[in-house]
Parts: sequence; C-alpha cells; structure tokens
Amino acid sequence: MKKHNYSAGPCILPQEVFEKSAQAILNFNDSGLSLLEISHRSKDFVAVMDQARALVLELLGLEGKGYQALFLAGGASLEFVMIPYNLMKVDGKAAYLDTGTWAAGAIKEAKLFGETVVVGSSKDDNYNHIPTGYSIPTDADYFHCTSNNTIFGTQMKTFPTTEVPVVCDMSSDIFSRVLDFSQFDLIYAGAQKNMGPAGTTLVVVKESILGKSGRDIPSMLDYSKHIKAESMYNTPPVFPVYTSLLTLQWLKNLGGIAAIEKQNNAKANLLYSEIDRNPLFKGAAAVADRSAMNATFLLNDEAHAPIFDEMWKAAGISGLPGHRSVGGYRASMYNALPLESVQVLVDVMKALETKV
Amino acid sequence: MKKHNYSAGPCILPQEVFEKSAQAILNFNDSGLSLLEISHRSKDFVAVMDQARALVLELLGLEGKGYQALFLAGGASLEFVMIPYNLMKVDGKAAYLDTGTWAAGAIKEAKLFGETVVVGSSKDDNYNHIPTGYSIPTDADYFHCTSNNTIFGTQMKTFPTTEVPVVCDMSSDIFSRVLDFSQFDLIYAGAQKNMGPAGTTLVVVKESILGKSGRDIPSMLDYSKHIKAESMYNTPPVFPVYTSLLTLQWLKNLGGIAAIEKQNNAKANLLYSEIDRNPLFKGAAAVADRSAMNATFLLNDEAHAPIFDEMWKAAGISGLPGHRSVGGYRASMYNALPLESVQVLVDVMKALETKV
Repeated sequence: MKKHNYSAGPCILPQEVFEKSAQAILNFNDSGLSLLEISHRSKDFVAVMDQARALVLELLGLEGKGYQALFLAGGASLEFVMIPYNLMKVDGKAAYLDTGTWAAGAIKEAKLFGETVVVGSSKDDNYNHIPTGYSIPTDADYFHCTSNNTIFGTQMKTFPTTEVPVVCDMSSDIFSRVLDFSQFDLIYAGAQKNMGPAGTTLVVVKESILGKSGRDIPSMLDYSKHIKAESMYNTPPVFPVYTSLLTLQWLKNLGGIAAIEKQNNAKANLLYSEIDRNPLFKGAAAVADRSAMNATFLLNDEAHAPIFDEMWKAAGISGLPGHRSVGGYRASMYNALPLESVQVLVDVMKALETKV
Repeated sequence: MKKHNYSAGPCILPQEVFEKSAQAILNFNDSGLSLLEISHRSKDFVAVMDQARALVLELLGLEGKGYQALFLAGGASLEFVMIPYNLMKVDGKAAYLDTGTWAAGAIKEAKLFGETVVVGSSKDDNYNHIPTGYSIPTDADYFHCTSNNTIFGTQMKTFPTTEVPVVCDMSSDIFSRVLDFSQFDLIYAGAQKNMGPAGTTLVVVKESILGKSGRDIPSMLDYSKHIKAESMYNTPPVFPVYTSLLTLQWLKNLGGIAAIEKQNNAKANLLYSEIDRNPLFKGAAAVADRSAMNATFLLNDEAHAPIFDEMWKAAGISGLPGHRSVGGYRASMYNALPLESVQVLVDVMKALETKV
C-alpha cells in the first residue's frame, strides 16, 4: 500500500534519493567499495563535499557574495551554542525573537554567554502567531529568528530590516521558498527536513561577520576553523552529507527553489482550503502566519478523533498526530511530499463529514 | 576484483552490515518506509537506540556498573571540548598523556578551560612509542589518554592505576581487545573504525563522575542532559546509529570482543612477522607498543616504493599509504578486515623480494 508520510522530521525524501543512497552503500561510484568504508579524504568524497557546498550557495543565490556553506554535525541545537560563541562579543548582547520551542531553546543557550534580549514573543498565546511591532537594539551583536516553527505551524513571511547581522534558523523550511537569502548573515538548518537525513547541519555564513567576538572558541565550535578546513576539520558525517547532495541535486533538476515553491504553495493551499471549508476542523495558527511546511489543525469536536484517526491510517497516512504542545494534527508537507499525498488527506477529511 | 580495504577510517565494515543498512534505506523493518524518513521518536527507532546503548554496555562488560552509553554527534573532536566542560572544575586541572596528533588535539582544547598538565609525551620521538615513568597528580580532576594512535601505529597495552577519573579516547581500537573497561570512568570513540560509519560518537560514562565541574555547561555539551534524554536530547544521527547497532550485533554474534581479539592478534602477528622478517621493510613504532589496529612500516630503500606501490594496487589493496607525519605505509586492520586481506598484503611483500 502506498504510504503518505507526514512525519515532521526526519521526513520523506525523494524516492530516487533513497535508491541512490542505498546503492552507494553497496558500491560507491562503481569503486567496488561502500560509501561507508572510504576515507573522507579520498578524491571521491572530497568531490562530494565540494559539490554539496557549492550547490547550496547556487540554490540560495549566494554565489560570489562572501558566503561559505558548511556541513557540520550536532544538529541545530549545537548551533544554538556556536552562534553566541562566534558572534556575541564578550560583554556584548544579542537580540532574539521568541516564536516557539526551538527559538526558546536558542535563547536559553545564548543566555549562558551574555545579555540576551527577547525583542518579541508569542509564548503567551502558545506561539500561535509571529510577533510584530518589535524593535531590534542597534547595538546588538546580532538578531536571531526562526523562520518556520515546526511544532506550532507558523512561518515568518517577512524578515525585519536591521543593520545588525541577521541569524536565522531555517531548519524546517530551507530550500522551500524563494527569499532574498542575502538579507541573512548566517543561516543554519538541521538537514532532516528538506535537505537530507538526520546527522548533518547546514551552516551558511557571511565570512565578514566572523572573528569579532573576542572569545576563545573551542576549535570544533569555531566557524572560521571549519571554513579554513573546507568543512573537513574532522571526519564529517559522510553518509548524511552524501545523501544531502543527492537531495540538493534532485531539487536543482526539478528547477530549484522557485519550482518547488510552486508545488509547496499548491499543497498548502489545497490543505488549508479544506481546513477552512470543512466545518469539522479548524486551523491552530493565525491565518496570516500559517506555515506552508507544517499545517496544524484541530477537530472542533474531539469526539470525532477515533473515527478520523482510523480513517487516515486506513488511507496509508502516517505521522499526522500533532505535537503535544498543540494537540490535534500536524501535516508536514516538506519538499518531497507529493501533492497526491495531500489530496489523499483532504479526501479523508471530506469523507469524515459523511461519517459523523 | 576482490578489494582489500586498509583505510584508516572511515574503514571496512562487515559486508552484512552494508547489505542490511542499504536494505533499511529502501524499507525499514518491513514498514514500507525508509529508515531515513521515520521519526527518531518512532517506536522502531527508539528501540534501535535502546538496543545499541544496551549492547555497548554488554559487549564492554559494564552492565549494572553505573555506566551510561550515549550516541552523540560531532566526532571525538567535540569530546575534546565536552570532557573539560563536564569534568574540569573551575580553577581545577587535568592531566593528559601526549601520545600523538589526536592526544595533542585534546590537550589544545583542554587548555582553553584551565590548567592542563602534560604528564608524559613522546612528541620528540615523533610519537613512535608510548611514554612511561610518568606520574599523575592526585589533585587532577581527571587523567586523559588515547589508547591507540592511528597515525603513529602505537597502542597502550596497560593503563596507569590512579585514583583520579580516567578518561580514554578509544576511537581507533574500541571493541578490538579484551580490557577491564571498568578501569575507565569515561570512554569515547568516533564510530568510524570498529563501530560503524562516520557520523556518530560513542561515549560511555560513569554517572558518578558528572555534575562536579561547577561550570554552566551548554545543553548540547552536557553529558547529564544527554543521559536524562536517553541519548535523544535532539535528533540523533539516525543512520549512523542504526548502522552501528548492526555492527555491534555482528560482533556479538561472532562471540564478542574475546573472539574478535583472537582474529585481530592473528592478523597483527601475520603482518608484523613479515615486517620483521623481510629485509626490505622496517616497522615505524617501538616493538613493545605496536598497535594491533594500525601497523606503520617503511621501506628500507625508498627507491623500491614505485614497484611496491604498483604491486599492492594490482593485488586489489587500497588505503595503504602512510600518514604524512610518518610516511611509508600504514595497514589498518580493524575488526572487519579479514585475515585473507592481510595474507594478500604479506604475499605482495614477499613477492617484492623476488623483484628487486
């Protein structure tokens, strides 16, 4: 039976990526060796890393603009630490926008390093919208935001204009929509949504913002050292990086971010239209801030949950239950999820009307 | 043609591990989903993590002795930072044994945190032996050593008795030989030698040594937080952890560490006997400290290098060139390398005698 995987991450990747990465484990580049047993310093893997780093900048439109792409380890959560280490001056301060669980996590770590100003927060509304009307101190070392809030289903549609460096956690919507990526000075993202499997973290950083914190940075937490080592300061997560390259190549062949954005908008419109039309459901996030990646929605009558749950499971859908912080349902519609899968869900939602 | 992979790491893994991990990418546990697209919080993956953590303690004989096994990210190099963060008190000090490039790397990071006493070093002899006759300050917060020096081909055969906690980087010989592992308070190892593919780091820590540094430890660098979260503080490196589990299961089915140690000794004896017998070659490391994992050796006459290189390549051997710090050759004979591959190398070394 065809599966429709709505997992919030790790999540669905293109079928061709699964097939090619499995093949590379058995015989990489027709070398007779597995991708897993070759040196990361071998010509073949150095080429993988170089291609992946270059393709990131190409897809984001950041080539030749002073940016470097790195494939690190430790997840976005380790970036919560690396960012203040590298960017917050001793006795300096940073500005953070609190839009959800992960933003709050980043704030918590920054506080260990110095003054951390929360310029806006929607915590009191269970993060159901993106705060507005905040201002960013001009003497902050950087401003940090989270472009998409996986758990709450909100997404920043625009980003503030400020003279301080802008740092953005794009873990759950990178490569999903066209943006002027040069408005950011540092972008980071755990791979396991739109870029690849769990196990590597993308960091795209404008080199000119580095080297100013005045801190003694441990080597593995120092972006400059990773740049100097061309993202091979130590043994990188070989398989996750290779599989990310395959996913980025799939995206490029599809037409890049502009092409996938059209598909993502079509999927989101289809689902949100049904949520708004169907009297049995309601959306969880403010309409203006709805995420095109993660749609959070609830049944108006919880008593319908058992029958709805049975129906979507019977349709081959998985990964639909909402996060405990919101309840209800969350449909994660990452790049590789086909429109067909959204249609299956919408059909189930419609069918529920005839059953209750 | 059959390949004989002597890569120093990432390195050869059992063929059944390649096959099973490739299969899991196409269809994990017959779920119809790829291992790469399932949630790390799913029942199936939580079981993988739990089994892997338990099997580590079982294989090391550390069950029920107050230890916890963690699968982290960032490689051994990130542990160089985590260890002082967690174990070196504010205004405390640590003792390090300097036995090679990686030990020196660990020392460099520790110095950022406080007094770092190098109790012994073989640096002046290009690390060709393990220092002896050193003493460990009784007021050190911990003693750090590196059990096997991949680059130089030396291996600690015994470990000092001390009342301070003993921390050991076993990246390149963990699971290769029987030791009383309870003599260590913290063991760590990048997976990419005897445990699995690149992308995860094993940490085995005695819980009673934690919580004493008095430092504000960033969450991702705090062993206690990882323990509390059962090694899922954030999204773990799913594929590397799963493939490590497969490798550990292979080892258990083979008879565990005692069984593989016999094979490893047979391989090492075969190769070192030939290095000592063959007048064209000489070993690089002190005989008493020779590593059973990485044999470093040189041609007595460099002029023979072109013909020897041509011969071993023709025999299907790869990964044999020595590290630039030593030159010559390095045969890495990790757990999954079959005795047959060592015989092929020895046969080539013998054949060289008839050609020059």
